[in-house]
Amino acid sequence: MAKVLKINHIAIAVPEINEALVFWQDALGLKLSHTEDVPSQKSKVGFVPISDSEVELVQPTTSDSGLAKYIEKRGPGLHHICLEVDNIEEMIAQLLEKGIHMIDETPNTLEGRKMAFIHPKSTGSVLVELYQLI
Amino acid sequence: MAKVLKINHIAIAVPEINEALVFWQDALGLKLSHTEDVPSQKSKVGFVPISDSEVELVQPTTSDSGLAKYIEKRGPGLHHICLEVDNIEEMIAQLLEKGIHMIDETPNTLEGRKMAFIHPKSTGSVLVELYQLI
Repeated sequence: MAKVLKINHIAIAVPEINEALVFWQDALGLKLSHTEDVPSQKSKVGFVPISDSEVELVQPTTSDSGLAKYIEKRGPGLHHICLEVDNIEEMIAQLLEKGIHMIDETPNTLEGRKMAFIHPKSTGSVLVELYQLI
Repeated sequence: MAKVLKINHIAIAVPEINEALVFWQDALGLKLSHTEDVPSQKSKVGFVPISDSEVELVQPTTSDSGLAKYIEKRGPGLHHICLEVDNIEEMIAQLLEKGIHMIDETPNTLEGRKMAFIHPKSTGSVLVELYQLI
């Protein structure tokens, strides 16, 4: 049986990473480690490590992205929780067997990691990402 | 300067803890460690440890509680993120000095811990709890 290892990150939808850093970096004293462009998601991500987990500040880069629409509808704020697992394919199979709806039944691979989103209708309206380091 | 030590927990607003466990426990394979009644918040909390952090499933126990109203307005889902700090009074002083608005300028003490909430208007609409083990 596949296992959840840890909370890999909490993603926060922000209109602008630099503005968000006024709180996360200047006030709380945390540090932005780096930013990353994710053209496939039309977004830019600012990584703020906290112990062995992370806060990810996710900024839309176009006004037609899913994230921009999310912010327009729901406002900025907590967006999703990402759980690191030991075997993502096994975990997806296990969830499907339990009747859980996946957004991604096959993981997407980006350098060094595989990812898949679970549909919020199966999680009590929480967007949950599964994540495996490879 | 006070320091953030880790993500202590992610709180999820749920109409009913047992229903939420169908996903978190039965499907993902995590375990509910215990539940706790919090009469002062008119809520009940189910604790689901993940590595050295936790998911807290927070259920309103009355229909007039803040949490019940939150669920009625926004729906269930991600509710707040809790950051464990080494010195909560120092952290609050540091945040106030930076112009951050606190919901609680003085921490509330419950057995074994002190807690204070930061106002979402200073955090980009994220409800952030500070937490210190004592």
